[in-house]
Amino acid sequence: MYSITIRDHIMIAHSLRGPVFGPAQKLHGATYVVDVEFRRADLDADGIVIDLGRAATALRDVLAAFNYRNLDEEPAFANQNTTTEVVARAIFDRLVAAISRGDLGPGGSAIESMRVTLHESHVAAASFAERLGPSRAGL
Amino acid sequence: MYSITIRDHIMIAHSLRGPVFGPAQKLHGATYVVDVEFRRADLDADGIVIDLGRAATALRDVLAAFNYRNLDEEPAFANQNTTTEVVARAIFDRLVAAISRGDLGPGGSAIESMRVTLHESHVAAASFAERLGPSRAGL
Amino acid sequence: MYSITIRDHIMIAHSLRGPVFGPAQKLHGATYVVDVEFRRADLDADGIVIDLGRAATALRDVLAAFNYRNLDEEPAFANQNTTTEVVARAIFDRLVAAISRGDLGPGGSAIESMRVTLHESHVAAASFAERLGPSRAGL
Amino acid sequence: MYSITIRDHIMIAHSLRGPVFGPAQKLHGATYVVDVEFRRADLDADGIVIDLGRAATALRDVLAAFNYRNLDEEPAFANQNTTTEVVARAIFDRLVAAISRGDLGPGGSAIESMRVTLHESHVAAASFAERLGPSRAGL
Amino acid sequence: MYSITIRDHIMIAHSLRGPVFGPAQKLHGATYVVDVEFRRADLDADGIVIDLGRAATALRDVLAAFNYRNLDEEPAFANQNTTTEVVARAIFDRLVAAISRGDLGPGGSAIESMRVTLHESHVAAASFAERLGPSRAGL
Amino acid sequence: MYSITIRDHIMIAHSLRGPVFGPAQKLHGATYVVDVEFRRADLDADGIVIDLGRAATALRDVLAAFNYRNLDEEPAFANQNTTTEVVARAIFDRLVAAISRGDLGPGGSAIESMRVTLHESHVAAASFAERLGPSRAGL
Repeated sequence: MYSITIRDHIMIAHSLRGPVFGPAQKLHGATYVVDVEFRRADLDADGIVIDLGRAATALRDVLAAFNYRNLDEEPAFANQNTTTEVVARAIFDRLVAAISRGDLGPGGSAIESMRVTLHESHVAAASFAERLGPSRAGL
Repeated sequence: MYSITIRDHIMIAHSLRGPVFGPAQKLHGATYVVDVEFRRADLDADGIVIDLGRAATALRDVLAAFNYRNLDEEPAFANQNTTTEVVARAIFDRLVAAISRGDLGPGGSAIESMRVTLHESHVAAASFAERLGPSRAGL
Repeated sequence: MYSITIRDHIMIAHSLRGPVFGPAQKLHGATYVVDVEFRRADLDADGIVIDLGRAATALRDVLAAFNYRNLDEEPAFANQNTTTEVVARAIFDRLVAAISRGDLGPGGSAIESMRVTLHESHVAAASFAERLGPSRAGL
Repeated sequence: MYSITIRDHIMIAHSLRGPVFGPAQKLHGATYVVDVEFRRADLDADGIVIDLGRAATALRDVLAAFNYRNLDEEPAFANQNTTTEVVARAIFDRLVAAISRGDLGPGGSAIESMRVTLHESHVAAASFAERLGPSRAGL
Repeated sequence: MYSITIRDHIMIAHSLRGPVFGPAQKLHGATYVVDVEFRRADLDADGIVIDLGRAATALRDVLAAFNYRNLDEEPAFANQNTTTEVVARAIFDRLVAAISRGDLGPGGSAIESMRVTLHESHVAAASFAERLGPSRAGL
Repeated sequence: MYSITIRDHIMIAHSLRGPVFGPAQKLHGATYVVDVEFRRADLDADGIVIDLGRAATALRDVLAAFNYRNLDEEPAFANQNTTTEVVARAIFDRLVAAISRGDLGPGGSAIESMRVTLHESHVAAASFAERLGPSRAGL
């Protein structure tokens, strides 16, 4: 299995609902350093998993919808805690949609699975990974 | 699959038995920067894999049994080389026990697999990963 | 010159006033990974710059006043943009006060200069460094 | 599953053929920081995945064939783009050959899978991972 | 003294002349992860050292002249070894020119010194730092 | 001012005397990831601060005297706590001796100052820096 991983970041505000979050129930924020890994079994004719430039642009476009925002006010997260796990999943789903739209080029349809990891500090991270395609079985 | 990863560290002394270890057969030591990844298929009602605070406390408690110790004198490692691999496994097993005791809260029982990685320098690391639960099939 | 550096972090929300900040004028947030370097010319009788444990506790106490907060609502920053530079300076000043109170132990008075660095992402950081003591000449 | 990971690096020149590569079609170069992960289900009698020293030497030997080279002139890559993915695969294959030759010692035959990751910058990496053995099923 | 540091990178080919360079006399290449630190004694009215966005754009523009190039063919480095040190200095000088042209905004003239660091691998880096202004005394 | 920085590491055992060290009074150990920065005002005729290969070899030789050792038994540290600060200084002094012996080549005499930093974990480091030459004034 081959993969490529690209890194970008967002800076967001939010608050979390539920006693498990302790002081994080107050409005605070985070820098999420975002790593996205794209995986496929074989390389294309150019010898790549996917066009790195298009992948980076697609990721930047997905992140733009969250960057410099207060996630408490984002309709996309209504009635949902914007935990690092949930934001990782949202970025994952939007990248899947970008692949479906063809934003990553023809190679996008060859991607078999992705992993989105958000580093929220030097000591904590969360990720969401799954196979793509009709079945979307757990990875 | 969702995951969260937390980081902590320990500073230990030990020696290793066997010619394969060369100069590491002498008493020396290591800082192990420890990453623990907790994985599960779905998030709980709060939108998390597990309570990050409880996970960090459980890890700190497990590490306290090794931190600032000479592992050559620890009964837990009698007749065993305390290689980075072996220490990774020991931390893994103690975290499983902590989960079984409920130290990570009710969400602990939903953890499907864990990965414990010990970085012993900027150029070397070891890890142990396995599914949890009755079967404990290799991961 | 000897130094020790310790690391911790905070997660804050804020907004910045002024067209230079572009989209960062909206309420957003940041994780600041905070490095503090304490410098002095000679070591104490124990062979250290300062008690690492007390320094870490003092830093944690200083950071607690900012952690999980919306800095827009903090009186300490009234009429001030809470840029990374300004927050670095605020942490610096509060550590100086902690040293003056003796929170870092008797060795605190031997600290000649400090540098506080806030990493706001994998591609940007800000710092404030200065000599301590009556003169406080620029460092 | 246990694993160990070791790190080394190479510095190469190359150019890439195909419009997808944009400015990278010109002769340029890269530092590849190379991480190799060796995985097996159980530890040997010494408590290790594999002899770390021999693994590091084998990796260094494999990398020596690429280090300080212009990959455009290497027969091993004739008619092939030397993308990060392709170079990761080439290093993987040569490590498999080294294991087959016994360069990693008797423990080499117990390695079940490997993952080779090349970090080409602070924001991009590529990897190749696969099971070893007769079947070599995708990993 | 305040500072901000920003990071970007370039990927270049080159060869080095002189027996001291050993195998690096052959055509090879490097990824340089570039950190630029801008320092000044006081913040501007917005609370910043310099406009981070303009600084990042100016750095990207300076790096574009080197990125994806064979430095052996660049007139700017004729009769000069393009060591990491020399490239660090070249980036420094071009950033000084950008500041002089006003590319970093009015705050650029307040920058007292800069430090340019090029990380060429996980184990080696080079830097050039100097005061700005008429005197340009060593820093 | 130009500089180059190289990285290597050692793994040592030791104990520290004095109540300030708390649990670190027991025999334990550390991995020290060692960064050495060599600084000089001008480059040599080859365009370098110093021969990187010779510097790396000299550092490796200096570290070999500490690596895989119990520092409590090293005569060099008799009656001295082997704190991270003290070990940083010892490495510094031995590198100065190596320069004096000519181990770093003729360029060694042009080195104006050095900084030795020991990272003992992901959250703590210590360093010693000083000008070289007859005066050795504090840096």
